[in-house]
Amino acid sequence: MKISNAIEQTKEIVNGVDVDHIMDMINAIETDPDYAKFQWRATNKWINGGLSQSKIKDFYAGNAEDKIRKKTFTLNADEPVFAAGQDSAPNPMEYLLHALATCLTGTLVYHAAVRGIEIEAVESSYTGNMDVRGLFGLSKDIRSGFQQVTVYMRVKSEVSIEELTEMALYSPVYDIVSQSSPVDFKLTTY
Amino acid sequence: MKISNAIEQTKEIVNGVDVDHIMDMINAIETDPDYAKFQWRATNKWINGGLSQSKIKDFYAGNAEDKIRKKTFTLNADEPVFAAGQDSAPNPMEYLLHALATCLTGTLVYHAAVRGIEIEAVESSYTGNMDVRGLFGLSKDIRSGFQQVTVYMRVKSEVSIEELTEMALYSPVYDIVSQSSPVDFKLTTY
Repeated sequence: MKISNAIEQTKEIVNGVDVDHIMDMINAIETDPDYAKFQWRATNKWINGGLSQSKIKDFYAGNAEDKIRKKTFTLNADEPVFAAGQDSAPNPMEYLLHALATCLTGTLVYHAAVRGIEIEAVESSYTGNMDVRGLFGLSKDIRSGFQQVTVYMRVKSEVSIEELTEMALYSPVYDIVSQSSPVDFKLTTY
Repeated sequence: MKISNAIEQTKEIVNGVDVDHIMDMINAIETDPDYAKFQWRATNKWINGGLSQSKIKDFYAGNAEDKIRKKTFTLNADEPVFAAGQDSAPNPMEYLLHALATCLTGTLVYHAAVRGIEIEAVESSYTGNMDVRGLFGLSKDIRSGFQQVTVYMRVKSEVSIEELTEMALYSPVYDIVSQSSPVDFKLTTY
């Protein structure tokens, strides 16, 4: 496996990633598979109309609650004026594309670092097409989500397009969007 | 259809949503289905390590490029220190949960507004479980994405849990995460 082979090859920072840190994580996982169980979290509160606010801080990883992150991240989403919002923040569909973008990019950069491959630049663009008749409940035959997502990524690196693609597509958000994840939705009232 | 029935019932702002504005959109779609075709967009540029930055502004909706939104939204994602990042921003998995949270909340609030149902409060929490052996390529049998997403939503409203749930689950991001969307990924080099 290339990741394990890279242990002897890389001892330094590659692409801004501390490869020793990642190798320590991999060694911990190989000793104890439970170390690999991560849980990411968010809470959200509706403000008004299309505006709501999420708080993000705690997560579970490496058999423990993280104690290093001190800051709580606060994120708003809103709808554009076109869709009866105030245009004060990106909307949920745009955040989904941002999640996909940053995940594909970060995954490529980390995998390359562990393999000792230098990445000089990554730029990418994302489109998501939807037909809002699904969202509005105007047609049962039209889904509410994206009918098509298209990604163009441009990478400056010595290695092949095939290896770059293989590394990027380890992306968890790519996996979720293209393959789905089970969602358990429970709603209660006050 | 409840959305159409609501035309005569609501003429005002409900839940902070301009229902007349939404009804105008629905009328435009019923006249011309192409009006319902939306395209959301993002571009992303890698900065260093786990840090990358997205820009979000333009979108297509209602047979035209939007001309109302003037601001470009800039969003960063980073990895936590635990995962060899700088903890300067939420990570992609957390952004995905934020997209899901804001989409479920906004969808519920908008559908309720069109039906003339008052929503007094919405709070929700999200967890996404993953096993990073998939992401790290340490096991071919383990997926890289979330193995389970769990949502708890609490709503203050007069109507039933069933109707509230039915309205929230029109959410496009819920549809994408729970059902998948086709992703066309094209990578080129410089």
